[in-house]
Amino acid sequence: MILFEKITILPSAYESAIEDAYLLVGDDGKIAYLGTEKPECEGAEVVSGRRRALIPGLINAHTHLPMTVFRGYGEGCELHEWLNRYIFPAEAKMDRKTVGICTDIALAEVLASGTTSVTDMYNIEPAVAERVAESGIKGNLCRALTSFASPDGFEWSGERADDAALEAAELYERFHGYDNGRIKVDAAIHAEYTSGPYLWQKVEAFAAEHGLGVHLHLSETKSEHEECIGRWGMTPAALFEKYGVLDHKANCAHCVWTTPEDHAILARHGATAVHNPVSNLKLASGFAPIVEMEKAGVNVALGTDGVSSNNSHDMFEEIKLAAIMHKAVALDPTLVPVETAFAMATLNGAKAQGRENECGRLAVGFDADMALIDLDSPHLYPIHSLLSNLVFAARGSDVERTYVRGRELYRRGEWRTLDVERARYDMEHYVFPKIWG
Amino acid sequence: MILFEKITILPSAYESAIEDAYLLVGDDGKIAYLGTEKPECEGAEVVSGRRRALIPGLINAHTHLPMTVFRGYGEGCELHEWLNRYIFPAEAKMDRKTVGICTDIALAEVLASGTTSVTDMYNIEPAVAERVAESGIKGNLCRALTSFASPDGFEWSGERADDAALEAAELYERFHGYDNGRIKVDAAIHAEYTSGPYLWQKVEAFAAEHGLGVHLHLSETKSEHEECIGRWGMTPAALFEKYGVLDHKANCAHCVWTTPEDHAILARHGATAVHNPVSNLKLASGFAPIVEMEKAGVNVALGTDGVSSNNSHDMFEEIKLAAIMHKAVALDPTLVPVETAFAMATLNGAKAQGRENECGRLAVGFDADMALIDLDSPHLYPIHSLLSNLVFAARGSDVERTYVRGRELYRRGEWRTLDVERARYDMEHYVFPKIWG
Repeated sequence: MILFEKITILPSAYESAIEDAYLLVGDDGKIAYLGTEKPECEGAEVVSGRRRALIPGLINAHTHLPMTVFRGYGEGCELHEWLNRYIFPAEAKMDRKTVGICTDIALAEVLASGTTSVTDMYNIEPAVAERVAESGIKGNLCRALTSFASPDGFEWSGERADDAALEAAELYERFHGYDNGRIKVDAAIHAEYTSGPYLWQKVEAFAAEHGLGVHLHLSETKSEHEECIGRWGMTPAALFEKYGVLDHKANCAHCVWTTPEDHAILARHGATAVHNPVSNLKLASGFAPIVEMEKAGVNVALGTDGVSSNNSHDMFEEIKLAAIMHKAVALDPTLVPVETAFAMATLNGAKAQGRENECGRLAVGFDADMALIDLDSPHLYPIHSLLSNLVFAARGSDVERTYVRGRELYRRGEWRTLDVERARYDMEHYVFPKIWG
Repeated sequence: MILFEKITILPSAYESAIEDAYLLVGDDGKIAYLGTEKPECEGAEVVSGRRRALIPGLINAHTHLPMTVFRGYGEGCELHEWLNRYIFPAEAKMDRKTVGICTDIALAEVLASGTTSVTDMYNIEPAVAERVAESGIKGNLCRALTSFASPDGFEWSGERADDAALEAAELYERFHGYDNGRIKVDAAIHAEYTSGPYLWQKVEAFAAEHGLGVHLHLSETKSEHEECIGRWGMTPAALFEKYGVLDHKANCAHCVWTTPEDHAILARHGATAVHNPVSNLKLASGFAPIVEMEKAGVNVALGTDGVSSNNSHDMFEEIKLAAIMHKAVALDPTLVPVETAFAMATLNGAKAQGRENECGRLAVGFDADMALIDLDSPHLYPIHSLLSNLVFAARGSDVERTYVRGRELYRRGEWRTLDVERARYDMEHYVFPKIWG
């Protein structure tokens, strides 16, 4: 049991902060008490709340964890050149060990900035899952499947179909439901422009058979969106609706060029649009119409995307940018209020992951997925509104401790389940020689 | 003397980082040596450079330091309502002591995030200058003058003309050139929409008489820009050119709605446009055309603006946002390369302040205005490009120490010249009752 005493608690994006409150975490990792009276809790570890706030752990609803190895690699050129000249050739050399090491660096960064659950898509995802399992964080994980049509029918790109399908199957069998649902596995289509009908049908059937969500990239760039219309006579959203893909709690990353009709489709199917503001600006993708999506009833979550296009996993940056950039696009300072921006990184992320009854807010019976914020810094002072300070002034480094299911995974530069020095050593002595040696 | 040994040094935005280098600070506060050989330096304090980098101190070229008291105050409404209902009535209650206390909180935040020089504009600026003088930071300071035409001629708004003019004169006399130029005083016009020809002429004459720069807000919002054209038949830039204001190393904050003709005017006069990306987005002002300005030859610096419209003084946020947002506006990922973004916060800021021969880069003979960056965090690892990591992944909290003229003013949560606890106490016991009590 852990008792936080005399602390400020922000239960959720839409509730007021409570001063001098108490929060008790039970031995089952769930919140046993939240209120202003000191609860019975003999033997509990006590954490003093002086100049501290407890907030719901942040949920990063779209990333590619192992891409930490590409932080700052081959930047400043056109997207096509960057991918084909730098990223794809390097990725082709990654193996299980490489993916695991790069994931450890990512998880260290993620936990240190208050994120308690991630949605990840990559190749060799079982190696990501092994690290997520070991680290104690929550994850919705998927193996990104790609395919290209070739003259003699159907072919996988840069990998054998069997291997990718086997990885997806391995991921599902070993990790779906792992540790009482701490890890969930999603089905995944990388994107329309990297796949075709055969794959879409296979993935749809896989999701239907096992009751999985589907994760995919959707209308990230103008050319991707327009070329899809050229190829199929409809937008990516309409196309995936047609193939039944959106029937499975779809998590659609980016949605920068989606139309009002697309938003109606996404809302109708209960899909989530994952907004990645930093990545969208850095890669020159554009400004996602999230205000319109929210009005249309689409669940909008937030993600960092891989650090190669960010270059950080700090969700506080995404929250702030999501809160400010749409104001400038529409010249309207009332858009995306702080509650909305913070909800995207908490409540909406939980919904995107099918965890809305489990996390995304602090309430009795919910998992104690939480970040302890150190308010004792001039940049967080004074506090007219805790939520405003969290959205506009806080950064990942203000996180003092991170808990998942009541387990402290990070405290001020120390990780309980990760060996960061070892990961750095392995990065230099195994990953770098493997990819660039 | 201080010797940094075996450290990574980024001499400037346009130079490569040097590994395992040495930097020696002389007793005069200037850089005495920078290179890869260990210099003679008996008796010097030695700072180990393991997993550390020395970079030029950042220059915040536009802010309103005392507005820390309004961090998160009265947000989420229209600009006009926010100013008239919340900010202006509160500002009217501020006195010298209030301004000084709020400035201390700001300076603590500024120094902790690696900023070594600020350009500040506010009311009761002599009280700001006292704190800047005491703190050891560099500052270009100005008293924002405003005026409005009234039926019976000329009148100052919300303050007596004499008081404001006296403050500007006091600021100049007490602080211009203070501590061998550590503080400089600029003449200042708040903005076109808050002043008139009488004031412009007075300020121009004041700048000319004393050889001062002029600081002002320029074309921050669409309505401000268009209403000026309606009133005067020309843009704010053309108007201030006509009144000679731009002849004095003008520092023009925002420039969001400036035209190609305006950029030619600014370039012709050697003026600086100070880009405030976070503030421009948060206040829904728009996207400043800095790519066009740079092409036209305008010096573009960076600022945070006051924290009430940000809500932080972290220049790393401005650098990152300046580097990414213009890519998305033009759908071109090659715009605003990392060198350009970092130069805005260093070399260009120094030029804006008339300090280009004094700081903005690390070189022998320049002042040792520097930030020591702690690279020992997963979010700054690996390092394919130090500059890319600084621009896209670093944040103010990665600053371990901040030096101005070789004097350590900040080290890891401790300030050498500021009493932050005292400022907090005074904020609660003096400022809050004074403004809202």
